[in-house]
Amino acid sequence: MKLKIALGQMEIVPGRPDLNTRTMLEMIGQARDAGAHMIIFPEMSIPGYLLGDTWEQRSFLRDCEEYGKEIIDASAHLTVLFGNVGVDWEKKGDDGRVRKYNAFFIARDGKLWGGENFPYPLRIKTLQPNYREFDDDRHFYSLRKLAQELGKTPEDLLTPVYLPVHGKQVGLGCVLCEDGWAEDYFTKPMAAIQKRGGVNLFVNISSSPFTLGKNSKRNRVFSKQARETGVPLIYVNNVGIQNNGKTVYTFDGSSTVYNKNGEVIYYSQPAFRQSLGMVELDLASGGTASPPLEVPEDNDIGFIYRALHYGIKKFTAAIGMKKVVIGISGGIDSAVSAAMYAKAIGPENLLLVNMPSRYNSQTTRNLARQLAQNLNCSYTELPIQDSVDYTIKQIESTPVINPVTGEEFYLKITPFMSENIQARDRSARILAAVAAAFGGGFTCNANKAETTVGYSTLYGDQSGFLAAIADLWKHQVYALARYLNDEVYRREVIPRGIMDIVPSAELSFEQAVDEGKGDPIAYPYHDYLFRSFVQWWDRATPEDILHWYDEGVLEEKLGCRPGLVKELFPTPGEFIADLERWWNLYNGIGVAKRIQAPPILAVSRRAFGFDHREAQNGAYYTRRYRELKKKLLGEN
Amino acid sequence: MKLKIALGQMEIVPGRPDLNTRTMLEMIGQARDAGAHMIIFPEMSIPGYLLGDTWEQRSFLRDCEEYGKEIIDASAHLTVLFGNVGVDWEKKGDDGRVRKYNAFFIARDGKLWGGENFPYPLRIKTLQPNYREFDDDRHFYSLRKLAQELGKTPEDLLTPVYLPVHGKQVGLGCVLCEDGWAEDYFTKPMAAIQKRGGVNLFVNISSSPFTLGKNSKRNRVFSKQARETGVPLIYVNNVGIQNNGKTVYTFDGSSTVYNKNGEVIYYSQPAFRQSLGMVELDLASGGTASPPLEVPEDNDIGFIYRALHYGIKKFTAAIGMKKVVIGISGGIDSAVSAAMYAKAIGPENLLLVNMPSRYNSQTTRNLARQLAQNLNCSYTELPIQDSVDYTIKQIESTPVINPVTGEEFYLKITPFMSENIQARDRSARILAAVAAAFGGGFTCNANKAETTVGYSTLYGDQSGFLAAIADLWKHQVYALARYLNDEVYRREVIPRGIMDIVPSAELSFEQAVDEGKGDPIAYPYHDYLFRSFVQWWDRATPEDILHWYDEGVLEEKLGCRPGLVKELFPTPGEFIADLERWWNLYNGIGVAKRIQAPPILAVSRRAFGFDHREAQNGAYYTRRYRELKKKLLGEN
Repeated sequence: MKLKIALGQMEIVPGRPDLNTRTMLEMIGQARDAGAHMIIFPEMSIPGYLLGDTWEQRSFLRDCEEYGKEIIDASAHLTVLFGNVGVDWEKKGDDGRVRKYNAFFIARDGKLWGGENFPYPLRIKTLQPNYREFDDDRHFYSLRKLAQELGKTPEDLLTPVYLPVHGKQVGLGCVLCEDGWAEDYFTKPMAAIQKRGGVNLFVNISSSPFTLGKNSKRNRVFSKQARETGVPLIYVNNVGIQNNGKTVYTFDGSSTVYNKNGEVIYYSQPAFRQSLGMVELDLASGGTASPPLEVPEDNDIGFIYRALHYGIKKFTAAIGMKKVVIGISGGIDSAVSAAMYAKAIGPENLLLVNMPSRYNSQTTRNLARQLAQNLNCSYTELPIQDSVDYTIKQIESTPVINPVTGEEFYLKITPFMSENIQARDRSARILAAVAAAFGGGFTCNANKAETTVGYSTLYGDQSGFLAAIADLWKHQVYALARYLNDEVYRREVIPRGIMDIVPSAELSFEQAVDEGKGDPIAYPYHDYLFRSFVQWWDRATPEDILHWYDEGVLEEKLGCRPGLVKELFPTPGEFIADLERWWNLYNGIGVAKRIQAPPILAVSRRAFGFDHREAQNGAYYTRRYRELKKKLLGEN
Repeated sequence: MKLKIALGQMEIVPGRPDLNTRTMLEMIGQARDAGAHMIIFPEMSIPGYLLGDTWEQRSFLRDCEEYGKEIIDASAHLTVLFGNVGVDWEKKGDDGRVRKYNAFFIARDGKLWGGENFPYPLRIKTLQPNYREFDDDRHFYSLRKLAQELGKTPEDLLTPVYLPVHGKQVGLGCVLCEDGWAEDYFTKPMAAIQKRGGVNLFVNISSSPFTLGKNSKRNRVFSKQARETGVPLIYVNNVGIQNNGKTVYTFDGSSTVYNKNGEVIYYSQPAFRQSLGMVELDLASGGTASPPLEVPEDNDIGFIYRALHYGIKKFTAAIGMKKVVIGISGGIDSAVSAAMYAKAIGPENLLLVNMPSRYNSQTTRNLARQLAQNLNCSYTELPIQDSVDYTIKQIESTPVINPVTGEEFYLKITPFMSENIQARDRSARILAAVAAAFGGGFTCNANKAETTVGYSTLYGDQSGFLAAIADLWKHQVYALARYLNDEVYRREVIPRGIMDIVPSAELSFEQAVDEGKGDPIAYPYHDYLFRSFVQWWDRATPEDILHWYDEGVLEEKLGCRPGLVKELFPTPGEFIADLERWWNLYNGIGVAKRIQAPPILAVSRRAFGFDHREAQNGAYYTRRYRELKKKLLGEN
């Protein structure tokens, strides 16, 4: 039997069941016109997936149900598979509120199917991710819990849905997202469903955010499952952006069909585009009649570019921001930011602002102006020296009165304080006002290394409406700069000089770029050290680092250049001082700054924010660390 | 048999197993000296409870295990019950990392007890809160999951721990925190353990944050459980503060002993104080030999004061902040803030700063100075008008160059923009610099109503190192002001004028306090409206509000003054316009501002931050709302 199946890779607008239902009804109409037997929409296609605690609004749940009924009503002569919240108004969730399921609906001819061998006429998610940025267990009652409540095993409830399609009975294995990633769970939903017999087709509806390398991994995992069950598998994912407040995720789509041998026979391309895919699937052969496709790996800088480009475009549109102001220093981060925004929202909607103080070199000022010219962006220079001097003078010359003694005293601004005054003068005094006058917001251009250790000023360069490149390590920022020149613009929009200059905040003469002085972060080493703290699955701590240092395998473990550590830190004392300096900052003021930092556009597996939950508890050193440190320093 | 039991109501320092173990060893020594048979420490007494994702550091887990061994080694002739992370290095959690349990350890004579009828020599948490500020399922594998994995029911695993105490066998029912709050779960841990027989004593070790009214509720729930099982129950909770980044929680202790009739026979007082409580519990009579105590309700403003006082004291100490700067406007929020900090850290460590512009009345300037005098705090006035004028002039007179046309244009600052310029000038230009020079940080004085709708300026009054009163509605701020004068200081430190004046930002002549003009928020109504959006268990939305408005029961539902709605909004059109205005702000710019807001000290059941997860998705109106609106406006 050949089935014509439409893959509704729709853009889901989170929290907007009205808009999503409209999109779905349009796609249903198109699929019907094209003679499809079945259309598949992503997980939570009606409400959206990342909604914070909106799930606690009963009127929102009712609304989702009612829009769901519209979709069911539209299923005449067409099987419509879609995701929605399933509400059992009679039962409670663990929090005592009304019970909600992350549900898979199977509609045909105006009614729901699958209720004859399951407690509800729908299917619910078995494996609910409650790690990384996901909070499924906070909101939804999993099949594992339902089984336990009913005194059954999860396997008892993992049944196929049988329904007539095209005059024949088809057995569908209906799973949701994480159900296909069962490796770390004792319950294997697909295997369990397949064991019940009569499964002709697995359908995985997902709402799976893009992160670098995810699709390559997904293809390995899903391909294996199709092969092992011997049943073809259709994966439908959405596009669009969704966020958790602190972290913004792009959804790439990349819907895929695997035949029973695990080969890819359909792959939605390009990523990040709404599409109604059409596949003819021969169930008799398990999809092997179609020729297998090669699927590209998704872990290069081009994918980062595409995800950020899409994320910037969609996020600015979602919050209604049409105009953007970027403070450009002549350094790499703001240059990459400007080049990204110019592509995403158009150079005519950008205003680039250079804000020199006495510490800014003519070199970087020229580079900033050159960048604006290359990008065809409006440009202005607003110096900050007079204002900074005024602030320091005002504070230092105004008496503070002690009411008890009646005495007066004066505050003193140190050079370090004046560095932060400069940074705040730029962002909070100038950029925020300029952005309002220009009719938009201003950007935060921080990278991930700076963000890790709070090498930034709160209400200064740490601020902005979005930190679009804050999930990129410094070496990725450079790679993106090259990619922008070579592949996106195909000309030198980011001047060579910006790539060659030493990274520097230029907040004092100690950071003079023309003398080769700059940031205290040695990116070729610290990028990789910080990555091990933040981004590794099992996160490294000073104990691990010192252990590897002691064993002479640190560079190999971190993935940085051999010999680098000895060059930077000739002695264990220097190595340890550096390690503790950054560990203290990462766990100390870095946390305080991230609490007040803008949303970050995520591309890695572990962006700061909701995927990197943290408490302001300060740095801790384990006992083994303290002992090893003593040994290395020759103390006892 | 009479048992002498020590309740180790310790201050837990989150993320510091070294310090916590030291505290525990000291208390163990004291308990032994006092002839105790048993000492009980709170949940997660070694590592702390709210640690973000620190649980993903394997070296931290090992460290906690090793400190746990020290406690076990110290249990000669003394039963030591304590909380720690239990690690099964051979098994995986759902996230694929090493498996962790939120575990209850029972140590005596250098070894662990309870392994003969359980998979491990410990007990693990059955019911894991994964709602509000809690993320237990993110980190820990619950007994429910373990049972399912082993093909058992939770009840199979819910067994007492039998151990010899004082020469006799004692059956302990060992549960953790949420296990005692089983009402909304199908598994009832205490009932299940009791059913196994031989239980002489229940012990609930908790790490339960203070929120208003929690203890009264806990006493009702726990008392019922003791009564129903007919077994005495000891509840041990910690003191201290812990945080989730965005939200800071105080822990009140309030450890309690219930006899088998559910009567309280021991109650640790005062709240928020580390103590080693001692009770003699006659197991033969189920604790009924001791006289029952009256326990006060904990829902008045005095409890809010004590929680905030403790929170400010502990939080500033935890982050090493000794000096604090507060911008005082002459309004109620900053006055309450100043009076709170003066008590918590001492007036000598405070610097109060008034920053008038041309819009600030002499009335509020005088009130600000009076407040500083009353509190005996250092005080200074730093006017902002010159700087604000300079910023506006600089921006308006500097040309912006369009690189394509070569043309120049000029930006224009509107009066609304200049309001935000003033607010940022105060906080980001002055307070941040003054705080650095004074050697500390500056506070955010926002209240909960403002925070709900983002009635504040980012990098302006929305900034600071801590928002200590941002979990208080405006009417609670006034109540706290009265409490401070009447009960804490017992004199008028907050001048009467500050309480009487109309709340106003004084950012334009439209907000002139001397003319009775002020904030657009009508607190006697909006406080209660916003509370229904934010704080109700089933959160209200415009659909609910409009429905109640239509039915004439809105004031009753919200709990505000009858007749108020009609006074404020004579027509449905005005009512709806107001409703939508604030709903849009709450879901729109309010979210954007909260993402970058300081940590909030929580006192309510739902502070902003980690207990109120939200996405920047904008406002949504359900279909039923839109229909009802049409009806009320007479549209069709």
